[in-house]
Amino acid sequence: MAKLLSLLIGLLLPLTIHAQAALAAESSAVVDPLPSWNEGAAKQAIGEFVAKVIKPDSPDFVPISKRIAVFDNDGTLWGEQPMSFQFLFALDRVKALAPQHPEWKTKEPFASLLQGDVKGALLGGNRAMLEIVMATHAGMTTEEFEKIVTDWITTARHPKTGRLYTELVYQPMVQLLAYLRANGFKTFIVDGGGIEFMRPWMERVYGIPPEQVVGSSIKTKFELRAGTPVLVRLRELNFVDDKAAKPVGIHLHIGRRPIAAFGNSDGDLQMLQWTTAGSGERFGLLVHHTDAEREWAYDRKSSIGKLDKAWDEAKTKNWTVVDMKTDWKNMFAFEP
Amino acid sequence: MAKLLSLLIGLLLPLTIHAQAALAAESSAVVDPLPSWNEGAAKQAIGEFVAKVIKPDSPDFVPISKRIAVFDNDGTLWGEQPMSFQFLFALDRVKALAPQHPEWKTKEPFASLLQGDVKGALLGGNRAMLEIVMATHAGMTTEEFEKIVTDWITTARHPKTGRLYTELVYQPMVQLLAYLRANGFKTFIVDGGGIEFMRPWMERVYGIPPEQVVGSSIKTKFELRAGTPVLVRLRELNFVDDKAAKPVGIHLHIGRRPIAAFGNSDGDLQMLQWTTAGSGERFGLLVHHTDAEREWAYDRKSSIGKLDKAWDEAKTKNWTVVDMKTDWKNMFAFEP
Repeated sequence: MAKLLSLLIGLLLPLTIHAQAALAAESSAVVDPLPSWNEGAAKQAIGEFVAKVIKPDSPDFVPISKRIAVFDNDGTLWGEQPMSFQFLFALDRVKALAPQHPEWKTKEPFASLLQGDVKGALLGGNRAMLEIVMATHAGMTTEEFEKIVTDWITTARHPKTGRLYTELVYQPMVQLLAYLRANGFKTFIVDGGGIEFMRPWMERVYGIPPEQVVGSSIKTKFELRAGTPVLVRLRELNFVDDKAAKPVGIHLHIGRRPIAAFGNSDGDLQMLQWTTAGSGERFGLLVHHTDAEREWAYDRKSSIGKLDKAWDEAKTKNWTVVDMKTDWKNMFAFEP
Repeated sequence: MAKLLSLLIGLLLPLTIHAQAALAAESSAVVDPLPSWNEGAAKQAIGEFVAKVIKPDSPDFVPISKRIAVFDNDGTLWGEQPMSFQFLFALDRVKALAPQHPEWKTKEPFASLLQGDVKGALLGGNRAMLEIVMATHAGMTTEEFEKIVTDWITTARHPKTGRLYTELVYQPMVQLLAYLRANGFKTFIVDGGGIEFMRPWMERVYGIPPEQVVGSSIKTKFELRAGTPVLVRLRELNFVDDKAAKPVGIHLHIGRRPIAAFGNSDGDLQMLQWTTAGSGERFGLLVHHTDAEREWAYDRKSSIGKLDKAWDEAKTKNWTVVDMKTDWKNMFAFEP
């Protein structure tokens, strides 16, 4: 009986997976898996790519184990204005920690920050930025940091919109993640943000588990504290997962080349180059921020999320460029 | 119709997964999932742990997403004598590359190696070892290195046994990997070996995909060569995944604490400490090399795979210690 049941399950599991894939292809006209996308070139390109790689008798068929898709986060899956949300987290942490650091009142970049002068604080360039990051991200155990991030992400509000930061995730992209997974893709984050800043909430918000998040990191150190093992976050950079380092991060964590990559800025250029240069059917997509009304409009001249070289290359390499204003019917879940 | 089918699949998939789990628990008396293990304390401890964490109404129940199991490779899943198989790979590479390096005839550690004197070559200590590793593992693209490893692992033979190295994987452990996965576990490698030396063959041999392999690494660099992106392997260490660094590697790649860890030496001590110190039901296991006839016998005094401190700690922390001679009915697939 048990053996029969085992056999039955062995038969059923692959069947249901195949049926799901077939269903996704067949039913797109019936139940739209991307309802927040307007009909247009971008939506069509996505659908055509997926249809090609999942069809077992297609010359472009890709087995499930190789259906790897990588997504930038800042500006691709959620907003990044007026500055990266992780930097806003760091600013909130500086305020929260200030009572324990009376010396910050006269020490830059903290003195300016505590007076609300972010521009002044950042006059110190990369060194100032690094000091802010280390003061707020290092010096605690990994479990303590996870709790700090979780508390912040579930309560802190974006300065301009008054929304929780996780309310500022783009619904069309959340649907795209789910659509790819329903078609056998494994979805990964590959972002310049801190890996430990992203992991605590991404499974809940994007359906992406911690082991599928690639990001920047600081070094950690194993210690026994009164016999209890902890990992301590050190004031030392380990990896900055941006630009030419994105393919490096992909290779180190995933170990195989993705077949689809999604980004929004020049920081994603090499990730798209690496992904689309592989053999067989490939897909590259850039989100272009064109909607100043529902969100922000910026590209070639922006200091945050600059889209310039990657945009030019998208044209020559036939990558899909999403016009957020016209391609996205709904942007946020809270819209009426 | 499509909607109905979708609903049906949505209902069926979780059912089959639960049924699988229930089945694995119920049917162990009927179809033994670990046929190469003799009945005894080790096999019983494994079965009891799995039964506890998969039973939905058990106080020790662990949801599937948190069923993370980590395995050391050298000495735990395959042999490691007379020296680590990756070092034997490096020696083969030195021989293959020697014609391109006439200077090696008089340059240590290569001169000794080329005369078959490994001990002499290693008189240079860590520096000699590092030179051998870099000369054989760096200077090519990641794709070129993958091909070199794949060619070697499918043809090279172990000096003492004459077997392919992948024939020297322990059948009881391969069954254990499959048994855990059948019960909803995600299985990871966490080994001191090179991550890119392990990935090319582990999916085929262990059923573990590249993104679930954690190991030591050298740095890589993204480059465009005549417009084609490549990752070049540099002569610079990135991470040594051994001892106190194993929990660091686990945290960086997996991002959550495993609930079960499997090793064989003091190099795995901190991985077992980190894994078993978490809350809820935990499992730690050490493979003790006791069988000089079918394999090799070594422990406290061995220079390779030394099992000393971890063995002592296993006794106080109630970790399972496998006696390979008595606990394993079959060791290798080629045995009669």
